[in-house]
Amino acid sequence: MFIDSLIDEIKKKNNPSVVGLDPKIDYIPGFIKEKCFSEYGKNLTGAAKAIIEFNKGLIDTVCDIVPAVKPQLAYYEMYGIEGIKAFKETSDYARQKGLLVIADGKRNDIGSTAEAYSAAFLGKTSLDRETTESAFDADALTVNPYLGFDGIKPFIEDCKKYDKGIFVLVKTSNNSSGQLQDLVTDHGKSIYEVMAEYVSDWGQYAVGKYGYSSVGAVVGATYPNQAKILRSLMKKAYILVPGYGAQGGTAKDASHSFNKDGLGAIVNASRSIMCAYKAEAWKDKYDESSYAEAARAEAERMREDINKAINRL
Amino acid sequence: MFIDSLIDEIKKKNNPSVVGLDPKIDYIPGFIKEKCFSEYGKNLTGAAKAIIEFNKGLIDTVCDIVPAVKPQLAYYEMYGIEGIKAFKETSDYARQKGLLVIADGKRNDIGSTAEAYSAAFLGKTSLDRETTESAFDADALTVNPYLGFDGIKPFIEDCKKYDKGIFVLVKTSNNSSGQLQDLVTDHGKSIYEVMAEYVSDWGQYAVGKYGYSSVGAVVGATYPNQAKILRSLMKKAYILVPGYGAQGGTAKDASHSFNKDGLGAIVNASRSIMCAYKAEAWKDKYDESSYAEAARAEAERMREDINKAINRL
Repeated sequence: MFIDSLIDEIKKKNNPSVVGLDPKIDYIPGFIKEKCFSEYGKNLTGAAKAIIEFNKGLIDTVCDIVPAVKPQLAYYEMYGIEGIKAFKETSDYARQKGLLVIADGKRNDIGSTAEAYSAAFLGKTSLDRETTESAFDADALTVNPYLGFDGIKPFIEDCKKYDKGIFVLVKTSNNSSGQLQDLVTDHGKSIYEVMAEYVSDWGQYAVGKYGYSSVGAVVGATYPNQAKILRSLMKKAYILVPGYGAQGGTAKDASHSFNKDGLGAIVNASRSIMCAYKAEAWKDKYDESSYAEAARAEAERMREDINKAINRL
Repeated sequence: MFIDSLIDEIKKKNNPSVVGLDPKIDYIPGFIKEKCFSEYGKNLTGAAKAIIEFNKGLIDTVCDIVPAVKPQLAYYEMYGIEGIKAFKETSDYARQKGLLVIADGKRNDIGSTAEAYSAAFLGKTSLDRETTESAFDADALTVNPYLGFDGIKPFIEDCKKYDKGIFVLVKTSNNSSGQLQDLVTDHGKSIYEVMAEYVSDWGQYAVGKYGYSSVGAVVGATYPNQAKILRSLMKKAYILVPGYGAQGGTAKDASHSFNKDGLGAIVNASRSIMCAYKAEAWKDKYDESSYAEAARAEAERMREDINKAINRL
């Protein structure tokens, strides 16, 4: 099961964190961009080639210390077809290097269409009655629950059939997440609590050997008080925690999504690792030519930071 | 403005409907699949080539009678990179033929990431300070509001800057849409009403010459009673209405999303038009070799059906 593989990797690497691969063009060191733009042109192809080179450098440097990477699909789609090729090459390369790939696509639609999204990212695409092929074949996908269970069920079916996982948005890390998610129903529950109960219910048939489900949730580190409530409402859900680092969430904030056994959550950092070479804390030691070493140093610092906070629980 | 172009086309063609291009492999006539599979292999490439041929035939046959097409991204992503190429080729071809393209992606994320999605589908992608390129360049995109205004704002900015549109999910057509959308808040409003008020508010600075906004909404034909309420709550929103035809919504159901001026909504049909050649009503007259003629006949029947229902308002 996906969730068992994820937990095995977290234990092996003693690291409940995931590196977000959100390759904004500004994040990529100049020497990589110059090389790719001069070889392929200053166009979407050149940008996509630079992304691949940058990502492979990051994957090489963190693959023995982090369990998973989380490519954010938006940052590939913005480079068009070439960007999608870069997503696929990044994802395949990460899996070859032993990393789990969480495709961050926040996909959602009515049931029949959710089936198609699930085939794209988790399952297989049927070409006729006998022939199937994999399209993107990630290990897990983030999904949006606005349409209710119809739109989630096809993903869960593929989770069970193909050992995959999903993380359902419950309480997101952004400032305006409360506009919908914090509304209180006439039964006195907030929307994020209602969604947490759904996630808990939807995940009960995909529970693995450690007691956690392959149907996880997304809860932002930027909302630690809500995280405490959500941790207790979704006992079996693994929580993907964005918002650590550049978005302002601390290790202590993120720790509320963990259980006392040190499991139950995985914390994402994107910009702080990808751009470590530019950070105040590292820029005396590293420069753009050593972006990968800087990323590794920051990933190690983050691992220690998160582990210390979990140990204080 | 997008919304003015859409209304101009609706008026010109006297047709408030949109053809959904959701090319499931089962929908494609056997002779097209056989040709493409034999030329390119029974694989994702062969399937994508068949989709392109099928879609072009549909676009050719409806381009003078419908204002817009709505390719559903899931049905392209499921064929991987080749599927995305088919989406781009379909979209570009439709625009060349004078159709507006509503990319149905239901994208959503936090603000910085929503910017990237918006660049992908509506705006432009920056390669450096001076150079930008278009990635997919659709006319409009469907978006999911679970994350609140942060995740919607970048799309609205591109709507204004590049004459594009968005349709925000409010009340979706599927069975389980009520699990979240029908919950009632402690102020006595349903979630779909709250979202409608947000959409109304978000759209007020993107209103065109006909008094409608380029920030529209999605309201399923399968919920006519809710549609009546939503029509009155979102006075300036153009409503994209899925759920007509194969999903069970009638023209009368869909008509509640229109205003008395005959404007205010556009009704989608996908399967009933794409697979008209297989339908009980048309199969004596058409077969798979005349799938395009069947699609045109069904598109004309639908136009009449919707227009009659609107005239009864």
